[in-house]
Amino acid sequence: MDRVEEWERRSERALTAAAFVFLVAYAVPIVWPRTGGTVAVVCGALVAVTWAAFCVDYVARPALSRDRRSFARTHLFDLAVILLPMLRPLRLLQLITLLNVLNRTGVYGLRGRVVTYATGGTVLLILCGALAITDAERGHPDAVIGGFGDGLWWAMATLTTVGYGDTYPVTVTGRIVASLLMIAGIALLGVVTATLASWLVDRVSDVSEAEQAATRSQVDALATEIRELRAELAVRSPDERAGPPLG
Amino acid sequence: MDRVEEWERRSERALTAAAFVFLVAYAVPIVWPRTGGTVAVVCGALVAVTWAAFCVDYVARPALSRDRRSFARTHLFDLAVILLPMLRPLRLLQLITLLNVLNRTGVYGLRGRVVTYATGGTVLLILCGALAITDAERGHPDAVIGGFGDGLWWAMATLTTVGYGDTYPVTVTGRIVASLLMIAGIALLGVVTATLASWLVDRVSDVSEAEQAATRSQVDALATEIRELRAELAVRSPDERAGPPLG
Amino acid sequence: MDRVEEWERRSERALTAAAFVFLVAYAVPIVWPRTGGTVAVVCGALVAVTWAAFCVDYVARPALSRDRRSFARTHLFDLAVILLPMLRPLRLLQLITLLNVLNRTGVYGLRGRVVTYATGGTVLLILCGALAITDAERGHPDAVIGGFGDGLWWAMATLTTVGYGDTYPVTVTGRIVASLLMIAGIALLGVVTATLASWLVDRVSDVSEAEQAATRSQVDALATEIRELRAELAVRSPDERAGPPLG
Amino acid sequence: MDRVEEWERRSERALTAAAFVFLVAYAVPIVWPRTGGTVAVVCGALVAVTWAAFCVDYVARPALSRDRRSFARTHLFDLAVILLPMLRPLRLLQLITLLNVLNRTGVYGLRGRVVTYATGGTVLLILCGALAITDAERGHPDAVIGGFGDGLWWAMATLTTVGYGDTYPVTVTGRIVASLLMIAGIALLGVVTATLASWLVDRVSDVSEAEQAATRSQVDALATEIRELRAELAVRSPDERAGPPLG
Repeated sequence: MDRVEEWERRSERALTAAAFVFLVAYAVPIVWPRTGGTVAVVCGALVAVTWAAFCVDYVARPALSRDRRSFARTHLFDLAVILLPMLRPLRLLQLITLLNVLNRTGVYGLRGRVVTYATGGTVLLILCGALAITDAERGHPDAVIGGFGDGLWWAMATLTTVGYGDTYPVTVTGRIVASLLMIAGIALLGVVTATLASWLVDRVSDVSEAEQAATRSQVDALATEIRELRAELAVRSPDERAGPPLG
Repeated sequence: MDRVEEWERRSERALTAAAFVFLVAYAVPIVWPRTGGTVAVVCGALVAVTWAAFCVDYVARPALSRDRRSFARTHLFDLAVILLPMLRPLRLLQLITLLNVLNRTGVYGLRGRVVTYATGGTVLLILCGALAITDAERGHPDAVIGGFGDGLWWAMATLTTVGYGDTYPVTVTGRIVASLLMIAGIALLGVVTATLASWLVDRVSDVSEAEQAATRSQVDALATEIRELRAELAVRSPDERAGPPLG
Repeated sequence: MDRVEEWERRSERALTAAAFVFLVAYAVPIVWPRTGGTVAVVCGALVAVTWAAFCVDYVARPALSRDRRSFARTHLFDLAVILLPMLRPLRLLQLITLLNVLNRTGVYGLRGRVVTYATGGTVLLILCGALAITDAERGHPDAVIGGFGDGLWWAMATLTTVGYGDTYPVTVTGRIVASLLMIAGIALLGVVTATLASWLVDRVSDVSEAEQAATRSQVDALATEIRELRAELAVRSPDERAGPPLG
Repeated sequence: MDRVEEWERRSERALTAAAFVFLVAYAVPIVWPRTGGTVAVVCGALVAVTWAAFCVDYVARPALSRDRRSFARTHLFDLAVILLPMLRPLRLLQLITLLNVLNRTGVYGLRGRVVTYATGGTVLLILCGALAITDAERGHPDAVIGGFGDGLWWAMATLTTVGYGDTYPVTVTGRIVASLLMIAGIALLGVVTATLASWLVDRVSDVSEAEQAATRSQVDALATEIRELRAELAVRSPDERAGPPLG
């Protein structure tokens, strides 16, 4: 199994870099649609190359692994990330890889990690949602989302479940992107509330924890009492205790 | 009572199949409104047959039961499911039966079951909400929801409480369907948040659980101390202990 | 103090009835705006009479009480309920009295009472919100809420924070009513989630409760051990124990 | 370090007053846009003076501190509050200082303080959001938010995530203000729910707390048992105990 681990350790930085390059190469023609043909060609090439890198990684890992069947079973999500790019805006799901960067922030504690991932995921979601919706809506005659700025604004209003309705998707791809963002919005609300609730419950229960500490000190007092009893018995009959070894 | 249980065990699969057939037969004329007259007639017949199957089940169970009065009292909800279909789009409430399929997924633990039911219920709600709203709105001159695609999009935006306002019901039946979906949306938000919060509280409190374990180990130490005291007393006076049985 | 309690016990049913009559008399001219002049006059009279009843109750209680100052201080909310009716749609705040009916439902347990009050309060809020918004908006040239049906639909969409935007208030009074309903919506979301979370935390923690029970049984074992030690000591030296009273 | 503390104690009231003056001087030309030129000049001067006061405070504190480096590192937020005013409507972030007033309300307990800060912060957010959005949108040809009243209404609908869509920002500054308010809305929802959940969990767990008390009383019983054992041993052998001091 260590050949897979070695591959993963070596390829991790390369894949994170590839995901970052993919994000930029995908974003440039969407954010500045009037960039010249050369830029568009370069960006297209970079998107293709980074996608190829992810494919190589997906094929290499089971090839290096001894237990290929369980790999295929436990890495279905990776396969989805590779194959989904067929639908252009959903290609951005590949960027989940970027969240691994957060593993290096050195934040400890479950709640700290939840907050870090939620914040990182939210920023990534808004960015990718804005890119995907702009890509999906642009060109449609009835579209109300005209550029990346509108896309960002729409992503914000959707993720927070405000939904003014001044901007909304009209294409099928746009509505699928919107649905994913809405579900993420519900999850985001849940994570924010749950983390706050867990923190509050934990802090408030510090008082009752002090009561539990009292119980522990009671047991300590009990132990002292028994130890004193033993000491008294030892003092009371030193001859008796000395007796048996002599006899 | 076991006659009722036997009936329920035997009829469970048939009723789940009936609910599934009902869903399909109800959905087909709504999703493809231009299907020929034959398809519409077949679907109408299937809807009627499956409804009849649910009626038979509702009548058969108290007939087989010894305690008919308590049956009527505890199965008011089943009666509502049977009688509500008078209002066409609300007939879909019958599909709650389909959630029983989730009982066979073999998910254990309270939180696992809550997640499974919430996910299954959400998918079913969006599907049924979309069918019901399309059925209710279609034909109304001011309707903005024109087909099943619009219905699905509207159900998503309503259940997640985003509510863009690009699609909204204008008929009374549509607004009742929408109100049910809004209430479900609030409940969904609550379930997502509560499950996350419960998981976080549980994971974070693992630390204080270790403190409780410390208390238990204290009691263990105390028990050892007392056992040693007994052993010492026994060693100290073997003659005294041997004495009473002799005398 | 018991004269106040006697007054409250005697007047409770009358005041609940008055609040109910107030709701109906207030609602009729709003729901059916084209009712004849006689009905409007009767309803107006009933609204005035019930308001007078609440005023009498507010004046009677401190008059019967020995400690008038603390009464004024602790019943500021009651005073607000009496005086607020100056603003017509806010008069409905008087209906909080109706929630006292829920005290008689015989639901025990904190969570049960929270659920009962939240459900009752939500129904009352939607009803009163719809009446208040219809009353406030009707007659305004730009109003999009034309009748009680629109009002109910708007109240639903606002309280659940969906907010399609097909109906929205345009008058200042309407926007104040809307703001109150939005705040209630946030509180409702909170209550639903909190109750679910509390229930889940409670059910899941049943397992760790079993662990606490184990600790208690450990202490029981310890107590048995000590009791046996005492018994042994008593058996070992019956003569010594009998000795002191004889000597 | 005490020179910094002395400065902070002395300047606290002055800075709170400055923040309040800033809020009023900033608000007046926005709420009443047709006020004469003199009022506008006075208000502009007051905004500049209060801003200077905050700058002086920010420069004075590290100058008085011994440990200047750690000051710069731990007061980055203060720097942001000072420098952000470049963007006009975001200047209102300076008003966070006003929340310190809440420290003097004498509310004890973690949950009480959370509720106080959430309520105070919400009122301040709605006020500042309304001022900022009116300031940002006014003058734009497509603006739908025409005055402070519209701004307040929009802030309410945004913070509660209702988002009707009858009013929405169209400028970039307005959309940034809106995004901040949406994030605050999610946090507000989280705080309300978390506080309610923590309160419910705490109240419901009072029952299991009584069970813990039972454990403590068990330990008390155990301690009594051991104390009685010691007393018995002392009574049983008074001569033995008296012996050692004599010998």
